[in-house]
Amino acid sequence: MTTAAVIGGGVIGGGWVARFLLNGWDVNVFDPDPEAAGKIGAVLDNARRSLPGVLDVALPPEGHLRFHNSIADAVADVNWVQESVSERLDLKQQTLAQIQSACRADAVVGSSTSGFKPSDLQLGAARPGQIMVCHPFNPVYLLPLVEVVTPETCCPVIVERALELLRGIGMHPLHLRREIDGHVADRLLEAIWREALWLVKDGIATTGEIDDAIRLGFGLRWAQMGLFETYRIAGGEGGMAHFLTQFGPALNWPWSKLTDVPELTDTLVARIAEQSDAQSGAHTIQELERRRDTNLVALLRALKAQDHGAGAVLAAQERQMRQGQMLGQRTEGIEDPAAPVLTLRRVVPLDWTDYNGHMTEAKYLQAFGDATDRFMELIGCDADYIASGRSYFTAETHIRHLDEVHAGTMLEVRTRVLGGGGKKMHLWHEMRAGGAVVATGEHFLLHVSLETRRPSDPSEAIDRALRRFVAAQSDMPKPAGAGRAIGPPR
Amino acid sequence: MTTAAVIGGGVIGGGWVARFLLNGWDVNVFDPDPEAAGKIGAVLDNARRSLPGVLDVALPPEGHLRFHNSIADAVADVNWVQESVSERLDLKQQTLAQIQSACRADAVVGSSTSGFKPSDLQLGAARPGQIMVCHPFNPVYLLPLVEVVTPETCCPVIVERALELLRGIGMHPLHLRREIDGHVADRLLEAIWREALWLVKDGIATTGEIDDAIRLGFGLRWAQMGLFETYRIAGGEGGMAHFLTQFGPALNWPWSKLTDVPELTDTLVARIAEQSDAQSGAHTIQELERRRDTNLVALLRALKAQDHGAGAVLAAQERQMRQGQMLGQRTEGIEDPAAPVLTLRRVVPLDWTDYNGHMTEAKYLQAFGDATDRFMELIGCDADYIASGRSYFTAETHIRHLDEVHAGTMLEVRTRVLGGGGKKMHLWHEMRAGGAVVATGEHFLLHVSLETRRPSDPSEAIDRALRRFVAAQSDMPKPAGAGRAIGPPR
Repeated sequence: MTTAAVIGGGVIGGGWVARFLLNGWDVNVFDPDPEAAGKIGAVLDNARRSLPGVLDVALPPEGHLRFHNSIADAVADVNWVQESVSERLDLKQQTLAQIQSACRADAVVGSSTSGFKPSDLQLGAARPGQIMVCHPFNPVYLLPLVEVVTPETCCPVIVERALELLRGIGMHPLHLRREIDGHVADRLLEAIWREALWLVKDGIATTGEIDDAIRLGFGLRWAQMGLFETYRIAGGEGGMAHFLTQFGPALNWPWSKLTDVPELTDTLVARIAEQSDAQSGAHTIQELERRRDTNLVALLRALKAQDHGAGAVLAAQERQMRQGQMLGQRTEGIEDPAAPVLTLRRVVPLDWTDYNGHMTEAKYLQAFGDATDRFMELIGCDADYIASGRSYFTAETHIRHLDEVHAGTMLEVRTRVLGGGGKKMHLWHEMRAGGAVVATGEHFLLHVSLETRRPSDPSEAIDRALRRFVAAQSDMPKPAGAGRAIGPPR
Repeated sequence: MTTAAVIGGGVIGGGWVARFLLNGWDVNVFDPDPEAAGKIGAVLDNARRSLPGVLDVALPPEGHLRFHNSIADAVADVNWVQESVSERLDLKQQTLAQIQSACRADAVVGSSTSGFKPSDLQLGAARPGQIMVCHPFNPVYLLPLVEVVTPETCCPVIVERALELLRGIGMHPLHLRREIDGHVADRLLEAIWREALWLVKDGIATTGEIDDAIRLGFGLRWAQMGLFETYRIAGGEGGMAHFLTQFGPALNWPWSKLTDVPELTDTLVARIAEQSDAQSGAHTIQELERRRDTNLVALLRALKAQDHGAGAVLAAQERQMRQGQMLGQRTEGIEDPAAPVLTLRRVVPLDWTDYNGHMTEAKYLQAFGDATDRFMELIGCDADYIASGRSYFTAETHIRHLDEVHAGTMLEVRTRVLGGGGKKMHLWHEMRAGGAVVATGEHFLLHVSLETRRPSDPSEAIDRALRRFVAAQSDMPKPAGAGRAIGPPR
């Protein structure tokens, strides 16, 4: 059992508490603030809500959380001490001295400092080699990055143990051996922050506009590839040196208030090109482009499902496109309720395939579920109706996979109504690709009250619309495969 | 039908071509480079691979692409002209003059310039009011951001039309009325780029380390909220003014080479706080935290599925955790093949719920599919076996939803083998939450050759392992609901 002490329970300290606890560590806390327990509790609530489902396996049982009245009690006999007090050097040095007077000599002593160098923190310490910077990012329980800054004064055995423990709790230790004020990430953040303050001060853009400039553009790129790999792609097959030749001149243009720029000497260009080759040279530019695009599609679709940021832009476009198609189709449906209804027409996205190289089975049900949603809208069970507290829940599903489909394939689903009226609805979806039926979905749904979560009768209008389809289609032959059970293997 | 002319077919021009074409516009291209068609074709290939599946509806039919031998031919009678030549002011001004001598007076004339101000581009133009900056981000076919810079010299009617047309093709026009070199996004990028060059030059971090510092930390935040909203959350309930009080001093610390910093006067603090209120004030900090966390979970899980960036960190953690569980379970499975096997134990993540407030139906199949994967591993059909060219494909699925489950719920799936041997495998999954069965999944699978994509016999070891389960479980009573068909509504 690994144990940690967290000294200082603000947003960052609380985030460490959550990260450790939810990965099964026992955690001691010291914070003289009488509100500390409440503040940490709020962070823990957020963490318990979000972290446990991130992996497709359960985390270990949560560790035990204990509050202590002194640093000495909190740090005694733990494997890891994380200092997370306010960003004042004297306070951090005093706190580290108290920690070292009571903790084990082989414990990791990490500091969450955003900017102080390890040598600043080690100054005058009893065992400087034990103290290192372990700088995490908010929310600590979700973001994997932690900057571990360890100059030569650090004990290599303790450093190795720290890296291993961090990896075990789902973090990525970015191991920096040379120290600098602000480490790496905060220097980048501070540069962009200072530039952003100028833009607001000079009235060029508002805070909201600057945020959109980030999250609808390069922020999406940076969630998956950083600055250099992205620019390597922009340089094309010529690689990083070519990019630097092409965009180097911008360093002398008035594009930033950061005017103390390094000179792009041959040495610097060669160093960047060499490091970039080491980082990305195993892949061609086309491979990197496709990797980037697949990631972006996955990120954009994840955000679209949340109707947020770039995803909100896409969702708005989609609603507008659906609106146009919907109006046409409502009319069409009303004119000929005997014809199977086109309820889905879409291309298989890049994030729908699996290790077998084809659309994964759950996405068939997602497509059939979307088709069901569309049919519900057609009979009047739309977003407004659902907001009024009623909906349909699927009770039973039977899918037959008749052929494979791949990313990029256009899918169409046509829907028949096998029965329905009152609380019940029995649908039959046929999925086609290039004319051939690739899957069928048979679904039995119940109309429910979203308040009681129990079956209930739909509105009269919906009941009427549904029965109209049932009546119009009742003379059609039953589709092959409908009503079929999975038999024992013969 | 909307038509566009793209003048200059590099990566950005090609990106515009793809964005326009795939959204149904006809596109004319002029680029004297004999390789232009090939370059644009490569961009189009990437776009056709990635964009069509992003939305859950099909895009309109692709427009027609035509190459022209002169600017005059290309721009005649189009609604939109996009100038995308090299970043040289004289070249851009000459090109714009040629465009204006042949295009319609009411067409949008956008420039892709990364840095020139509209007033620079309008200098000496025949109709300055028609020329505006429309600066997109690579890959243009996927990223929604386009900076539309229109000082007062621009014709408001044409500007309005431009904004509307951009929204129609899934883009977000960031409308800036005050001009500055580098607009907004590129100023932020240039600041961070200059800072990053210093870090490489000073030997603090390599290009790969800097990229990790971005994509494993703040890059994930910035894919969904920008700089200011993120810091507003960091300020807690005190909001942005509190954050500025707390972190303002860093402006005077040596945290960036950008040392020409704006003074945080009361006026500037008030402006930022006011703009931040306008941007985010409708939500409490807790609401923003939860919105952020839900987005991060969705993004992290999207990246985990791609095994990339932060997702690769999570995937590595998950593999290690599975490995530990797997070893225990293989043994357990071998010791008692008559007992239903625990094949899934996980928490419902935040991105698995739908508009009805519960786990959406497709995720039941995802969980059952994961349970099937786990059972396959148990009998020896693991990643290595699949890499050797053999696997199981699901042919048929029957799901019964017996109760709802919600985000945060711990799910367990236990699996029985109803039959199998040779090419066939017939599985029965029971999903429980808190002890109660919430769903069952009955699945019929076929062993296949991944080369022929046809049914084939499994390895002897797998066949033996599977038959061992079948024999041990054959005397158990058939589960209630197995072999059932969806009946017509009574």
